[in-house]
Amino acid sequence: MAIKNIVALAGGVGGAKLADGLARVLPAGALTVIVNIADDFRHYGLHISPDLDTVMYTLSEYANPTTGWGVRDESWNMLSMLETYGEQPWFRLGDRDLATHLLRTSALDRGETLTEITQKLAKGLGIQQTMLPACDQRFATMVDTVEHGTLGFQEYFVGHRWQPTVTKIWYDSDIHPTLTDATVTALEAADAVVICPSNPILSIDPILSIGNMRTRVQNRSVPCIAVSPLLNGKAVKGPAAKIMPELGHKASTQGILDFYEGIIDTLVVTHGDAPPQSKTYETTILMKTIDDRVSLAKDLLDYLEKIT
Amino acid sequence: MAIKNIVALAGGVGGAKLADGLARVLPAGALTVIVNIADDFRHYGLHISPDLDTVMYTLSEYANPTTGWGVRDESWNMLSMLETYGEQPWFRLGDRDLATHLLRTSALDRGETLTEITQKLAKGLGIQQTMLPACDQRFATMVDTVEHGTLGFQEYFVGHRWQPTVTKIWYDSDIHPTLTDATVTALEAADAVVICPSNPILSIDPILSIGNMRTRVQNRSVPCIAVSPLLNGKAVKGPAAKIMPELGHKASTQGILDFYEGIIDTLVVTHGDAPPQSKTYETTILMKTIDDRVSLAKDLLDYLEKIT
Repeated sequence: MAIKNIVALAGGVGGAKLADGLARVLPAGALTVIVNIADDFRHYGLHISPDLDTVMYTLSEYANPTTGWGVRDESWNMLSMLETYGEQPWFRLGDRDLATHLLRTSALDRGETLTEITQKLAKGLGIQQTMLPACDQRFATMVDTVEHGTLGFQEYFVGHRWQPTVTKIWYDSDIHPTLTDATVTALEAADAVVICPSNPILSIDPILSIGNMRTRVQNRSVPCIAVSPLLNGKAVKGPAAKIMPELGHKASTQGILDFYEGIIDTLVVTHGDAPPQSKTYETTILMKTIDDRVSLAKDLLDYLEKIT
Repeated sequence: MAIKNIVALAGGVGGAKLADGLARVLPAGALTVIVNIADDFRHYGLHISPDLDTVMYTLSEYANPTTGWGVRDESWNMLSMLETYGEQPWFRLGDRDLATHLLRTSALDRGETLTEITQKLAKGLGIQQTMLPACDQRFATMVDTVEHGTLGFQEYFVGHRWQPTVTKIWYDSDIHPTLTDATVTALEAADAVVICPSNPILSIDPILSIGNMRTRVQNRSVPCIAVSPLLNGKAVKGPAAKIMPELGHKASTQGILDFYEGIIDTLVVTHGDAPPQSKTYETTILMKTIDDRVSLAKDLLDYLEKIT
């Protein structure tokens, strides 16, 4: 059976890179990226969806190639004026980026769903694949820390640069969150599920924790593979290697395998990083260039064809 | 009796210039500018107060000296990105200016009054005089036009560049609007009231129409003078000379005198623009430079001392 439709689960920068590789390799419309929204927050009244933004800017080539987040050729004059007013903004809002936040926030405030406005924004930037927020309801990662008590995700991640020691992660939501119809439809049409190299605890677990997502992925009839966010125990970017031990997981291929037990068929890891007899596939997973993204995406599709 | 405390009523660019002249001449804290808020509106979810912004930027020297509105050294990258998304924004939101709208909107949305956030913003930009919105409630100028029916003020003024023919001006408000305590206190402490050269119909009438403002000014025990927004029947800027005839008023000193009948003691007009035996004072009223603003302010204060 040929792989036609892929669902990818993604968080921020690392996940966005692989999603971009898959988007470039697959025909238009064949890829659906389900994106973490548990790090969404309101800042100066704006609804900000950092992971949706990172995926969207990456898929549309608007991403800042240096940081991986934010918009390329960005200016920071709004932020500078906020500082003139005596504010000390801890989250960097770029001028171009603000257009996204204003459109999203005003759409949400007049009753559109996050799914609807995400489609409009992605289409506006010329994206030909589908991007879906994991949920249309509030579902927020909360971080209990030794040093500062309970923090909102962005306070932990950006405000404190993920330096506090984490004792617990939990989700705060207004009502019991459910998968969107669009997400369910995409999952039912998928010939394979790819978990991108995003933080398993902070980016992928929130997606799996919405509604019956985890059960759906566990009970799937199609292959599911994950690309490890670690290379020889180290994260390319972000707190994966720090937070996993803090929460009792090994910061290693074995730790990721244990975390995704029952969820994935195969963990894709870098050369020499597979424990003996483990359900792994070793290949080049570090994505420094656009070509690296495309190569990894092709490699994964070939692998999926083989195991299907 | 010496003039100590002045209350000025002002709308946008012209009013802001005289307010700035008065602010420069009077001791810190001696001037209170009561600013029109009937052209406030929501745009992309942001609460925008164009006249408050113009007065604030002018008093703080942040104003764009070319346009009279907006912030100097402004960039337009958010607006450009909005256009990338396929939007056609008819109101120009500059990047630096956005900081003001975000701070104001988020303050209002968490329950602060427009008066409170206006004081904070003005203080943030180093303004040492007092700026007060004419009202803390919604009180919106609506414009009935021949060509487009009823328009919100900014749709008429910016969206249609004040070209439609106006048949009626009216005010839309959620509840009966009242003067704020701060406005009443300022009026009670005033040794004189100065109506700035703003549009009598579009900027000053909305201020006079809030609560018992008109009666308070009519029954005052201190002098009240207005500076004409017309020079020999022509407006320096904006629709005064167009809208006055459309609504049955003469676009002339006599028209302004009639409009302010019972409100002012003296109309200050340019040389040679006073009808015979009228309650006018002729002087140089055109303000092209900062020095012009200061000269006119000094001139008005001397005149007020004389008639007090």
